[in-house]
Amino acid sequence: MTVSTLLTEALKARVRRPSLYPKLTTAKDLIASGIFKNGMRMGWSGFTGVGYPKETPVALADYVEKNNLQDKLQFDLFVGASTSPLVEDRWAKLGMIKRRYPYQTGKEIQKKINRNEIAFADKHLSEFPLDLVSGYYTLEKKGNVMEKLDIVLVEATAITEEGHIIPGASVGATPEIVQSASKLVVEVNTFLPNFEGLHDITLSRFAPYKFPNLIQRVDDRVGTPYIPIDDDRIVALIESRHPDNTAESEPQDQTSHRIADNILEFLAHEVTMDRLPNSLLPLQSGVGNIANAIIGGLADGPFNNVEVWTEVIQVLVDQLTKHYDIFLLSDTFLDFWEHHKLSFASATSVAFSPHGFKRFYDMWDDLKDRLVLRSQSVSNSPEVIRRLGVIAMNTPVEFDIYGHANSTHVCGTRMLNGLGGSADFLRNSKLSIMHTPSTRHTKKDPIGISCVVPMCSHIDHTEHDLDVYVTEQGLADIRGLSPIERARVIIDKCAHPDYRPILKDYLDFAERKCLEIGAAHEPQLLDRVFKMHLNVMGEENTMRIKGW
Amino acid sequence: MTVSTLLTEALKARVRRPSLYPKLTTAKDLIASGIFKNGMRMGWSGFTGVGYPKETPVALADYVEKNNLQDKLQFDLFVGASTSPLVEDRWAKLGMIKRRYPYQTGKEIQKKINRNEIAFADKHLSEFPLDLVSGYYTLEKKGNVMEKLDIVLVEATAITEEGHIIPGASVGATPEIVQSASKLVVEVNTFLPNFEGLHDITLSRFAPYKFPNLIQRVDDRVGTPYIPIDDDRIVALIESRHPDNTAESEPQDQTSHRIADNILEFLAHEVTMDRLPNSLLPLQSGVGNIANAIIGGLADGPFNNVEVWTEVIQVLVDQLTKHYDIFLLSDTFLDFWEHHKLSFASATSVAFSPHGFKRFYDMWDDLKDRLVLRSQSVSNSPEVIRRLGVIAMNTPVEFDIYGHANSTHVCGTRMLNGLGGSADFLRNSKLSIMHTPSTRHTKKDPIGISCVVPMCSHIDHTEHDLDVYVTEQGLADIRGLSPIERARVIIDKCAHPDYRPILKDYLDFAERKCLEIGAAHEPQLLDRVFKMHLNVMGEENTMRIKGW
Repeated sequence: MTVSTLLTEALKARVRRPSLYPKLTTAKDLIASGIFKNGMRMGWSGFTGVGYPKETPVALADYVEKNNLQDKLQFDLFVGASTSPLVEDRWAKLGMIKRRYPYQTGKEIQKKINRNEIAFADKHLSEFPLDLVSGYYTLEKKGNVMEKLDIVLVEATAITEEGHIIPGASVGATPEIVQSASKLVVEVNTFLPNFEGLHDITLSRFAPYKFPNLIQRVDDRVGTPYIPIDDDRIVALIESRHPDNTAESEPQDQTSHRIADNILEFLAHEVTMDRLPNSLLPLQSGVGNIANAIIGGLADGPFNNVEVWTEVIQVLVDQLTKHYDIFLLSDTFLDFWEHHKLSFASATSVAFSPHGFKRFYDMWDDLKDRLVLRSQSVSNSPEVIRRLGVIAMNTPVEFDIYGHANSTHVCGTRMLNGLGGSADFLRNSKLSIMHTPSTRHTKKDPIGISCVVPMCSHIDHTEHDLDVYVTEQGLADIRGLSPIERARVIIDKCAHPDYRPILKDYLDFAERKCLEIGAAHEPQLLDRVFKMHLNVMGEENTMRIKGW
Repeated sequence: MTVSTLLTEALKARVRRPSLYPKLTTAKDLIASGIFKNGMRMGWSGFTGVGYPKETPVALADYVEKNNLQDKLQFDLFVGASTSPLVEDRWAKLGMIKRRYPYQTGKEIQKKINRNEIAFADKHLSEFPLDLVSGYYTLEKKGNVMEKLDIVLVEATAITEEGHIIPGASVGATPEIVQSASKLVVEVNTFLPNFEGLHDITLSRFAPYKFPNLIQRVDDRVGTPYIPIDDDRIVALIESRHPDNTAESEPQDQTSHRIADNILEFLAHEVTMDRLPNSLLPLQSGVGNIANAIIGGLADGPFNNVEVWTEVIQVLVDQLTKHYDIFLLSDTFLDFWEHHKLSFASATSVAFSPHGFKRFYDMWDDLKDRLVLRSQSVSNSPEVIRRLGVIAMNTPVEFDIYGHANSTHVCGTRMLNGLGGSADFLRNSKLSIMHTPSTRHTKKDPIGISCVVPMCSHIDHTEHDLDVYVTEQGLADIRGLSPIERARVIIDKCAHPDYRPILKDYLDFAERKCLEIGAAHEPQLLDRVFKMHLNVMGEENTMRIKGW
């Protein structure tokens, strides 16, 4: 198609640099030009189902299908976090992904990762962008930054006069992915509103030339409202007219409400004890039913002028129940704002449900000065999280009696989505809270899985990182306790009543046996520590074991 | 004794605030006054065998012995890290320690910790001081900072006109411990030289009133040369005339030299690939034979103007071989300086051997502008470590094929010294290096323990934190690799030849079995993953098992 046909009024309004018009093309024509080659390292914009390129990846999948190129046109795919599971799953099914960093969602991609057909590694989301520009994923190449990625697809909601990119509802690692690109394909999304003014974007710098990040309040700005780019590297400009891929939020359940109540009561206690101010400290909260319930509670709660410093993702709850493909910053956030309890929020991505996005756009004038979207290297920065004294709340797969937590691997081996930013927040926050239902169901037992176990089958967060554990049963505050003291409190407060005696038996037994050899600081019996896990993996399909 | 008898010329020269003279006393008289009470929370200055109070703790132990107060005069003891094992061991033996945070050394204290007779918890050394002033160890008390600790013993090498304290060879958590004190006992050590001018001290601030730390270079100063105190809280001033308690360093062994060579070769490669500058980036190195050998290599090596940003501790190597009670920042550091390869070093403690300290004092004029001692909340600050791009090198108990590491618990249950600052550095450094001999001996087998295992029996550092693993066998650079790719490289490069086939068998077996259930992202067999550990704990006393 000719440039003049492609230059719609909508596009003209968004692309304010006319010298880019000659690069206008369609995804199909771009693919036909042969620019995409097997084995390329490819980057995408996007984070948690928003801001990812929506034209080219679909056209590439169509192309592979049509030309029977399954398993023959493969890419190493680098994105700040997850994109749309629909696209990634289709790519996975078509054998188009050889390697994927550092986080993902989607049934098909997970299947292939767990069959080792896709090489995957998860990584702290704060570190991934710097590792990328430092060349840690391209060790055979010399030097930093330039041309680490062969081709990058980036979504914009506008392009400035200088040719700089205005992203949509996420920033993520897009700045660094763009920084690392040999060639850039820019998809300008004219379906979405222009998000101009909502972003605060910084690029990664290298030691020994790094500066302090000067953010001292959640609403401080230290960057630019756009992603600066070298437009010589833009090889194509494509119009896109698709919404982001999010799902409707779920009604809240009783378990989540009980967990939220436990947490809100604890926060109120911390205020009473003068360890937290009345407005609390900036909150990081995950996603899913529990996070919804907490935010819902805060929207109606006793705390005023609350601030949020968060990332966005945390789909483990959904994954582990049934909604594996739902990403959403719960729409209760909008109530939180509307009730004027939430004064300001900073994140790297806002992923509302379609209905929530509609409300969000309606509230735009009121909200636009109470929200900022930052690079994930900043939203997840240990430096800033510690300085602000963030209160972090996340859901694990399981935690153990001594306080370690597993966020990634079911029974130690099956990867879910990846670590994400959970460890960035939990290690560096002022208060680290892990919340989960005390049990989950299996095929044979409605409470076949205890989320409190003797030893996590995979450890992502250590006992040195976490302060508070919460289930619908209660809340364990383990600050200042030794391992055995922690174990008693965690079993008492958090374990399901059916599992409490099983875990207590284990602790007593392990303590006795380990005392015999003078090694009982953190008693474990390595010959049976995973008995509950093995039992749920076996015929009986439950962690309710008869004895140790 | 009267004040005039106690006011020696040496003391007069050091204590420049005469209004404090009336508080002069002796440890014995102080104890006789009944100020020390059972159940008190007590803090000490000091870090890694230097800077701890040397008069009062010994006098208190004498008092307990003389009056048969064993197990009857007990304290919760808070110190930045370890003190002298001689003192702590004596206190432990006499039942004077009820609780101890966050790090320790000494055979006797470890025995009691592992018998649960002393409640111990280890913690990131960067976080401990802030946790303390935030009241995380005194949850029943309201508010921050003041009077968290009932009594604090602090060593000074001088007191300024304003009554502020000049510490000795360590800063550690002393500023925050002093901040938290209801009552302060100051021991002025006139045996040691006055360390004035060597320190850069900052206090912990609380969110939401925390500032960026503005350190951008290892030699930047952002604090005061003294610990500011409220001298109303000083209840006693005592002269002390004892040296710090360090030991002579050990001759270097061949294994350590091979490990050091592997690391130096790797660093040179990183320079060639433009990922590191010629002067490298600031180094953090542990203590023990391997660290000695690395520093020795650097003292004679190809890199100029090298800088050091370190903490000091890392006694695991010594502990695991035989020198459990040796702390020393290897004296090869002095060569490093003397050969003008090391341009500047920042730490929270310098703990040379007695002979090394002598050399250090002789070089004082040359060195004093090339060294700064900081608070441990700064030396171990994630913010600063990331900004400077530190290269961190530490020794674990063991690491596993997927890249997790155990720094604290032998066979998952027996506490050694604690986490220390290892995770502060390894998580936040630009390059995280774990080095260890590939094997250690047991009573029955000279290579009975493999330091490369299928799964660590305790996890302090996750696969998401570490980049490079080194033994005398070789070096595994796992940046950018998926778990199975990592496992192959780690087994090939790091495992001892006798263990390589055992570990390869495990990996193949686990991969096959986990593929059967579609859960092979990080293959583990929970029913036998600790078989090597169980075997070494058993009759055979070796990890060389016959099969899986």
